Amino acid sequence: MKAVCLLSGGLDSATCLAWARRQGFDVYALSFDYGQRHRIELDAATRLAEAMGAATHRVAKIDLRVFGHSALTDDIAVPKGRNEAAMSVDIPITYVPARNTIFLSFALAWAEVLEAGAIVIGVNALDYSGYPDCRPEFIEAFQKMANLATKTGVEGLALRIHTPLIHLSKADIVRLGTELGVPFGLTHSCYDPDATGRPCGQCDSCLLRAKGFAEAGVIDPAA
Amino acid sequence: MKAVCLLSGGLDSATCLAWARRQGFDVYALSFDYGQRHRIELDAATRLAEAMGAATHRVAKIDLRVFGHSALTDDIAVPKGRNEAAMSVDIPITYVPARNTIFLSFALAWAEVLEAGAIVIGVNALDYSGYPDCRPEFIEAFQKMANLATKTGVEGLALRIHTPLIHLSKADIVRLGTELGVPFGLTHSCYDPDATGRPCGQCDSCLLRAKGFAEAGVIDPAA
Repeated sequence: MKAVCLLSGGLDSATCLAWARRQGFDVYALSFDYGQRHRIELDAATRLAEAMGAATHRVAKIDLRVFGHSALTDDIAVPKGRNEAAMSVDIPITYVPARNTIFLSFALAWAEVLEAGAIVIGVNALDYSGYPDCRPEFIEAFQKMANLATKTGVEGLALRIHTPLIHLSKADIVRLGTELGVPFGLTHSCYDPDATGRPCGQCDSCLLRAKGFAEAGVIDPAA
Repeated sequence: MKAVCLLSGGLDSATCLAWARRQGFDVYALSFDYGQRHRIELDAATRLAEAMGAATHRVAKIDLRVFGHSALTDDIAVPKGRNEAAMSVDIPITYVPARNTIFLSFALAWAEVLEAGAIVIGVNALDYSGYPDCRPEFIEAFQKMANLATKTGVEGLALRIHTPLIHLSKADIVRLGTELGVPFGLTHSCYDPDATGRPCGQCDSCLLRAKGFAEAGVIDPAA
């Protein structure tokens, strides 16, 4: 059975890809070139797809900067050195408007063409509580809409959206990834790497990653 | 109040724009450059947005060809000279996978940035019964998902998706557009125009348009 797996190149999506392979899916990995500042992500995604046995990997080019308004695509400074209380107060400035909705819509288009019965996405309701489009009720509503949107849905073949990480802590994800043999050294999480691709170590994503590895008692080979 | 209005450059979306203006919305018109064969559409959209008083008009560039599989983006021949029975038998080859889902997702992103409370889309459940993503139940499910996906939704400000044409026949749309003063001469409907932009007159879209004008007893200035 085929699954479209959203692959950013980070720890979470790499763990999702490994999960999907373990479930027995043929994995069609999908990444986005959306004008992100940290394009090193896309190189990581390409290496991961190859190393982890994806059937194929495609990069869809879309322009999210046309609407602006995020530190991940604009020239707004990425926040550094925040504690978790500060991260969770409100929706982070690194939020890209409707990003998961757009990404899932493209995954849906590809799933329809492939006649795939599954989409896998590494959203996480705990560590990223500030992103509304990471909540289980959003995923459920998207799945319902998706099954009304497509020929697949019309013909009665249900499409399922899998979120294997949705209730896991970052430490749980590190543990799951370790068990599944994810090559963590190939993943990239930083929102603001230097020109050589080295993680900054201080953005929310770097801090959450470091905490997750520490709590799981695993050495991060990419740190 | 602001509304994002999807504007393809055709008869239906132009009538939607006029409807939104009549309702008192400030209209933010959104078109897509998605590798369509009939790019003359985009020129029509630009002219319409200006002529009809849109606050602004943006064209988002997205690559739907990455997934292939439609006569509107691939090198598959557009069907010609079909009668309505043939058109309605099954999902037309001109169907682009998940297109309305993707278009609405981008509209949602822009609506969130603009803090707009409305999206207007010219879907039509009658003439295009072959497209699953033109049905009222799809729109309703998308609206529900959209209100869970965004900061707007989280903050309790409801986003409404308006489909003023959904139950109208093509003749009804011509009548409504006439009443609203839509400059039909600037619209473009053909799936397969010649190099100078002249409509072919024989694709499903041309045939439905001609029938609509004929039934409404209105001369089509673009024919």
